[in-house]
Amino acid sequence: MSQERLIEIETDILSKNDSYAHANRAVLAGKGVFAVNLVSSPGSGKTTLLCKTIEALGDMPLGVIEGDQQTENDADRIRATGAPAVQVNTGKGCHLDGHMVGHAMEHLDLPDGAMLFIENVGNLVCPAAFDLGEDGKVAILSVTEGEDKPLKYPDMFTAACLAILNKIDLAPHCDVDLDLYEANLRRVNPGIEIIRLSARTGEGMADWLAWLRAHLADKVVPEAAQ
Amino acid sequence: MSQERLIEIETDILSKNDSYAHANRAVLAGKGVFAVNLVSSPGSGKTTLLCKTIEALGDMPLGVIEGDQQTENDADRIRATGAPAVQVNTGKGCHLDGHMVGHAMEHLDLPDGAMLFIENVGNLVCPAAFDLGEDGKVAILSVTEGEDKPLKYPDMFTAACLAILNKIDLAPHCDVDLDLYEANLRRVNPGIEIIRLSARTGEGMADWLAWLRAHLADKVVPEAAQ
Repeated sequence: MSQERLIEIETDILSKNDSYAHANRAVLAGKGVFAVNLVSSPGSGKTTLLCKTIEALGDMPLGVIEGDQQTENDADRIRATGAPAVQVNTGKGCHLDGHMVGHAMEHLDLPDGAMLFIENVGNLVCPAAFDLGEDGKVAILSVTEGEDKPLKYPDMFTAACLAILNKIDLAPHCDVDLDLYEANLRRVNPGIEIIRLSARTGEGMADWLAWLRAHLADKVVPEAAQ
Repeated sequence: MSQERLIEIETDILSKNDSYAHANRAVLAGKGVFAVNLVSSPGSGKTTLLCKTIEALGDMPLGVIEGDQQTENDADRIRATGAPAVQVNTGKGCHLDGHMVGHAMEHLDLPDGAMLFIENVGNLVCPAAFDLGEDGKVAILSVTEGEDKPLKYPDMFTAACLAILNKIDLAPHCDVDLDLYEANLRRVNPGIEIIRLSARTGEGMADWLAWLRAHLADKVVPEAAQ
């Protein structure tokens, strides 16, 4: 297959995805739902962070879409917090797409003014290219991964509006330079916001919750805005 | 685009890849080169493990092919050990393929009976489907990633012949159950070999070096076998 034909196919797939993402975005805007797309390497701690976040948000209305190649494990962990969750298994697939998320949203029945957390498949490459209709991508990095990751996987950190440097409780045990991590993030995306956090100890959680609440507040339900 | 058409395209891409991989395998067999394809999430410690491995192997002839979306960083780290390395930047691509590796091999000029290390793009999904002509895939897991990863990304651990549980020096700091990690690996691949290792402290390195040497010894240069 020629390079031109491959590019044509890729453009076709991404353009179909964008139309699904556009439809999702319209649904979310109509309800004043603030949606974040959580992206990262496998094992950065997305699900643990999400469970702690849901507990801390108390009775705020929210829903979760979980993406994984296989298993219902993550949705089960979320449901154990009391929050509604829909698991999407991508099988051979390496990312969630707009079509999958649109279907999952139909099963969540989110109230107006809710938050929607979409936990993508753990993959620092492919999910960067797929808009799901979210308000923003939040990239989660475990500090154990090393400071060079933003430079080696620049697409993801260019696409993200916020980076969470997670597992900072492990930093003293793994020769990591958090300032260099931040400098490398800003090299690929000068406007990126950064929060240092440990879902385990709770450090940084207040900043993350404030970030979420501020963005939800900016997202007004059209009717309520009258 | 229909699902049938997408499957047709995928089959076409994988079959082209397999023909390149087949050619690579023939070249490597002709030289008695033992080739491993190192696969993992980003930040599992592949490059550090590789640097320590090269130092420990002393003057054994070897070469390295480094795959990353961007930067020459990893090849630079390998070259600092004195070993020859070729960097492949995949750009938007999420894995190395047989074609890229074939070209990179042309630039390495490996002697007979050498070892070839191919460090794939950090990604637990896509590299599982692409044969590069290697003798085996070695999956590296940082213990910080969590015991559920083999179940959530089963394709990679089914494709691998050896799993290295890396960064075990961090295990006491992150509530990880190494026996459960091993049990989950064997649930998806009952025949997988497993080595617990810390590239940082050197624990487990002897087992890994013995594994490499034993497999190299099994790979006899055709002429020398006369």
